[in-house]
Amino acid sequence: MKYLHTMVRVSDLEASLDFYARKLGLKELGRTESEKGRFTLVFLAPPGNESAQVELTYNWDPEVYTGGRNFGHLAYEVDDVYAFCQGLMDKGVVINRPPRDGRMAFIRSPDNISIELLQKGAALPRQEPWASMPNTGVW
Amino acid sequence: MKYLHTMVRVSDLEASLDFYARKLGLKELGRTESEKGRFTLVFLAPPGNESAQVELTYNWDPEVYTGGRNFGHLAYEVDDVYAFCQGLMDKGVVINRPPRDGRMAFIRSPDNISIELLQKGAALPRQEPWASMPNTGVW
Repeated sequence: MKYLHTMVRVSDLEASLDFYARKLGLKELGRTESEKGRFTLVFLAPPGNESAQVELTYNWDPEVYTGGRNFGHLAYEVDDVYAFCQGLMDKGVVINRPPRDGRMAFIRSPDNISIELLQKGAALPRQEPWASMPNTGVW
Repeated sequence: MKYLHTMVRVSDLEASLDFYARKLGLKELGRTESEKGRFTLVFLAPPGNESAQVELTYNWDPEVYTGGRNFGHLAYEVDDVYAFCQGLMDKGVVINRPPRDGRMAFIRSPDNISIELLQKGAALPRQEPWASMPNTGVW
């Protein structure tokens, strides 16, 4: 299990990069643009401390961020996302977004902090019961 | 500059430790109780990945966490908190909580994500203009 990033949503990507990179001094490590999903992701970290990342999520269609929706989630990489989620379910944790794709799951803390679990390396082959497990609530 | 932790507020410490430690598998690294401040802090991280911490803040006097107040802040350690804050001010950033104590400052991202800046090692000697600089807003 390995910490990956803390994700925050931003309403103005340029203003946010100005703040996180130019002013605060974090270094941009990578950027992903999704035409289909209409979002841009930018990963930043302190220079020399690249393993501790902040992920900025910029949705191209304007959203209003009140009520803390701008805080996104904590993300952890796990060795086997199916086994990890099964272990959580055995302990009574609801898997809000099951790893249907063998890659990504979301759960929530008791205070509704969203936590992303990501399969290490390539996605696992799709398999039941995960592949057809429905979402529960939001995350 | 070094990433320290992501802080989240929790309304039930036992339920939160059950979730973050027993269920999610993070390891408790340390705990601070403040009788005076009436709070408990617990630091957790993935086993073997101790540098990437989550800090649980439990306030003994009940608070209701809606609207994202349960997300606290991102924290970074800096070599010289005065120089770092001066650099931010020069770039137009408001220091919401100036480092009056030579140790701790808070700023906000454009989307109001709270960011804590902590002096590396011992606190710096108190000095002006910091020592008498008032707070601005909340953080």
